[in-house]
Amino acid sequence: MLWENKLQRLHLRGAIAAAKELINEAIAEKLDIKNFSSSNTFRVTDLGCSIGPNTFLAVQNIIDAVELKYQSQGHSTPEFQVFFNDHALNDFNTLFSSLPPERKYYAAGVPCSFHSPLFPNASIHFVFTSYAVQSLSQVPNEVLDKSSPAWNKGRIHYSNASPKVFESYAAQYAKNIDCFLNARAQEVVCGGLMAIIVPCRPNGPPYPQDTITETMESCLSDMAKKGIISEEKVDTLNLPIYFASPHEVEAAVERNGCFRLEKMEILPQEKPSGNFSRGMVLSSLIRAGMEGMFKNHFGEEIIDEFFDSFHKKLDELSKFESGNGGSLFILLKRIATS
Amino acid sequence: MLWENKLQRLHLRGAIAAAKELINEAIAEKLDIKNFSSSNTFRVTDLGCSIGPNTFLAVQNIIDAVELKYQSQGHSTPEFQVFFNDHALNDFNTLFSSLPPERKYYAAGVPCSFHSPLFPNASIHFVFTSYAVQSLSQVPNEVLDKSSPAWNKGRIHYSNASPKVFESYAAQYAKNIDCFLNARAQEVVCGGLMAIIVPCRPNGPPYPQDTITETMESCLSDMAKKGIISEEKVDTLNLPIYFASPHEVEAAVERNGCFRLEKMEILPQEKPSGNFSRGMVLSSLIRAGMEGMFKNHFGEEIIDEFFDSFHKKLDELSKFESGNGGSLFILLKRIATS
Repeated sequence: MLWENKLQRLHLRGAIAAAKELINEAIAEKLDIKNFSSSNTFRVTDLGCSIGPNTFLAVQNIIDAVELKYQSQGHSTPEFQVFFNDHALNDFNTLFSSLPPERKYYAAGVPCSFHSPLFPNASIHFVFTSYAVQSLSQVPNEVLDKSSPAWNKGRIHYSNASPKVFESYAAQYAKNIDCFLNARAQEVVCGGLMAIIVPCRPNGPPYPQDTITETMESCLSDMAKKGIISEEKVDTLNLPIYFASPHEVEAAVERNGCFRLEKMEILPQEKPSGNFSRGMVLSSLIRAGMEGMFKNHFGEEIIDEFFDSFHKKLDELSKFESGNGGSLFILLKRIATS
Repeated sequence: MLWENKLQRLHLRGAIAAAKELINEAIAEKLDIKNFSSSNTFRVTDLGCSIGPNTFLAVQNIIDAVELKYQSQGHSTPEFQVFFNDHALNDFNTLFSSLPPERKYYAAGVPCSFHSPLFPNASIHFVFTSYAVQSLSQVPNEVLDKSSPAWNKGRIHYSNASPKVFESYAAQYAKNIDCFLNARAQEVVCGGLMAIIVPCRPNGPPYPQDTITETMESCLSDMAKKGIISEEKVDTLNLPIYFASPHEVEAAVERNGCFRLEKMEILPQEKPSGNFSRGMVLSSLIRAGMEGMFKNHFGEEIIDEFFDSFHKKLDELSKFESGNGGSLFILLKRIATS
């Protein structure tokens, strides 16, 4: 639906705008361009870039800020090479056909999971990733295993599920974020930066609740009761996402040891613009990220009905308005290690 | 049609196999790896790579030969980064979904015309391009202009057309090959190599004939006479390809001044394998490269009939068997310029 695409764009642009100032500040204050003098190429990547156009705006912001930094320090402007990364099933054809024709950078697409190394050693100067690092490489095996104490019957996520389910998800996240940081530590030059925007949960309690996935689950449960989808299909769906807390991010950075955590702060929540309700905005955003998975699992014919009931339930939930998470801006700097 | 894809693959694999030994030799004898010691990354690109799988074979050949060279000179193996290039309308989704899972290189796609710069300065060590450099960036304006002496009525190419038509094509080729070589001169490091496989025509006569495009033209003319397509549609079609002679290639390399022509030789013509006639093989190869353009120009419904009559006419033509061109292997080395 057209309004949804526009809505997604507007909302994500809001987040990018909120992060823009933080990124400008990061580049002005924390980027060590004197380390890069041996190369006249500045390489940027957007990990989990999707199909545009938000990635083009984000990348342009970064390039503008880096240019300003080079100029202000009396260096000539480098050449820019930008790597747009997403998994191999992303629609790169759409991404490539909408690349800004007047771009001042060499563009390339990198079709591979960001949980593995994507680039040669010490070749990247700035990593950007927005609403992507919450994705797990897979659903934890245990929650799909009927014989396991972590078997997640009747639920689609760890929220309100047994502690074992959450522990399995947390362990999967720890594995994934370690792979992610290890890969980036190889690729990013010393003095280079990584800016991460990611949905998060607050620090504690140990077994967190998530209103959004619970609402999703309740819609699916209603549809199963009506016989529109089978109960078994609900049992076998588990969302491959994890909302880490700031403490978990800190712990992962410490385990890795190659980055300094320069900044971590909650981004201000965007108010929905125009006539769009918060439920509509959120369901639209989540639809953008998860529609494919829901289609694969339940079939295309239930998708509109599901997301329609989802946005209405989100709107009804007053407790939801207070939010139980938010988006985290994390700035990491690659440091020299002995 | 499935057999066609298989046929195209087999035939092009033949050409790649013929070039393989020449490339191995080139890398063993001409690649100056001591120049690259400041970087532990070896960057390869295939320009005009299409959707695979031939590009994967070609790239693997190159990497194997470079690894061997590094090892034989006592250097540790570098990391490889491979840039698969084609224009932005190429089907990169298909290319990316068939990337070899066990590849030992970092892969990226570069969606842009190779007549412009594609990569940062001095960042590429080996350029490969196979059956791509004959493509012009556009049909020369004059041959489409009814008021020009080069207006190419009734013909689809320069073969057997007025000398003015050929001159317009030759001028367009000269512009394109100059842009191509200038862009590559920027991108390729000193001591790096460029291997080009391209269909060519023999040196002289001044206004060359090309049996294949004439045969194509004769099929279209038959179809226009039968009223299947309009005469005007034939008049306004001109193929954006040019078969340069070895002398023209030499002249372009000399104009550019940044490459040394290390080798130029005609590749042995492949005999069609199995039960496929030469006409079938050729029409299939040409269909692979031009089907999209023919569909756009004449509509999808005439395509099968056209290529069917084309392969039959090619088979009938005994003079065609002697060949009036071939494929050229060109090896260029980037040299230091003052």
